[in-house]
Amino acid sequence: MNVGVLGTGMVGRTLAWGLSEIGHDPMIGTRDPAALAGRTDRDAMGNQPFPEWHAEHPSVGVGTFAEAGAHGSMIFNATSGAASLEALHLAGEANLDGKVLVDVSNPLDFSQGFPPSLFVANTDSLAEQIQRTFPGARVVKSLNTMSAPLMVDPAAVGGGEHVVFVSGDDAAAKGDVSTLLRDGWGWQHVIDLGDLSSARGAEMYLLLWLRLMGSLDTPRFNISLVR
Amino acid sequence: MNVGVLGTGMVGRTLAWGLSEIGHDPMIGTRDPAALAGRTDRDAMGNQPFPEWHAEHPSVGVGTFAEAGAHGSMIFNATSGAASLEALHLAGEANLDGKVLVDVSNPLDFSQGFPPSLFVANTDSLAEQIQRTFPGARVVKSLNTMSAPLMVDPAAVGGGEHVVFVSGDDAAAKGDVSTLLRDGWGWQHVIDLGDLSSARGAEMYLLLWLRLMGSLDTPRFNISLVR
Repeated sequence: MNVGVLGTGMVGRTLAWGLSEIGHDPMIGTRDPAALAGRTDRDAMGNQPFPEWHAEHPSVGVGTFAEAGAHGSMIFNATSGAASLEALHLAGEANLDGKVLVDVSNPLDFSQGFPPSLFVANTDSLAEQIQRTFPGARVVKSLNTMSAPLMVDPAAVGGGEHVVFVSGDDAAAKGDVSTLLRDGWGWQHVIDLGDLSSARGAEMYLLLWLRLMGSLDTPRFNISLVR
Repeated sequence: MNVGVLGTGMVGRTLAWGLSEIGHDPMIGTRDPAALAGRTDRDAMGNQPFPEWHAEHPSVGVGTFAEAGAHGSMIFNATSGAASLEALHLAGEANLDGKVLVDVSNPLDFSQGFPPSLFVANTDSLAEQIQRTFPGARVVKSLNTMSAPLMVDPAAVGGGEHVVFVSGDDAAAKGDVSTLLRDGWGWQHVIDLGDLSSARGAEMYLLLWLRLMGSLDTPRFNISLVR
């Protein structure tokens, strides 16, 4: 499957490589591929320069947001929350139409420092904003509740005995994403939270996640459900 | 230890009985004890009439909010979020002064139906509102992230392999609550989330919790941390 992955940070890189490793054909989308190819600096999160990473992962294509949007029959939004709507506009509404759009972003607002707050929450969510802005896209919120390495390798902690959520208004789209999560990356526990408004809960969990990261002193954790 | 438990719903009843069972002396506080003693109806959640419950749990004292506030050397706020500040005012600021105040409430707003939103979130929390209103109280947010039966009996699911959080600005108060949770009720995993602003995360988790309750079709669950 051709997949467009919007965003060049750790989440976008990890998802793109994780898709390539299970036989898909990913293309990372970015605003200016030439500028990206010339980067020699680490990003704000300390990740290696993109060209260096890309040289180690040559099976991942790179193009503009619009090229990645056109390439993918499924699209991942792995941009920062604040940049998501603009990146999706650049990907092109027509390129999103009818496609499954997996929204992995979080509406984090760092304007007051760390820990951040959310720039949308409680009675709305970024996933719903995206769905309203691009009504032809089949938005599924997922994978926003754990650090990037675990998204594509849940077995890396606790034998994979932990959960990933899907939220969305399109049952078939949630099914497609659930299948990718299960059969592609080995997620054993995919929890359907309900319609897209349930993404509010998944996004608001981030404020708890960030505190847990501090308490546990690692982002390498996830939650499981005990009954 | 004498403990005041504000609130006569399932949470208040469960905490009071749970305290009694481990050797403490709880008093439930309510607005009008005489009216409570005359109730013959089930409450909005379908719980049995209070007098019927009380007859089965006679070791639990009942008094006004102020009497429960005066009685307790530790106070639990188990009222509904919307009623919490008023109940605490009625308990009496002087009765809270210097005491550990365990805030179990959630700022749920059902005015738009189910699922609810929160009436305070993101950049503030109910726990912080309570602390600002009663600066002499030593507020610890805890136990708001699971259903009442599990609060006092974590072993009821998953062999107790799941987590409870504490948030607060007073380290000694968090220590007292953690000791009660561990040694009193058998919590094996008490996670200190940090200062009281971390209660934002614990309260905002409720919107995820409510969706999980729907997906799992039971409130009888909790989360564990997998590393």
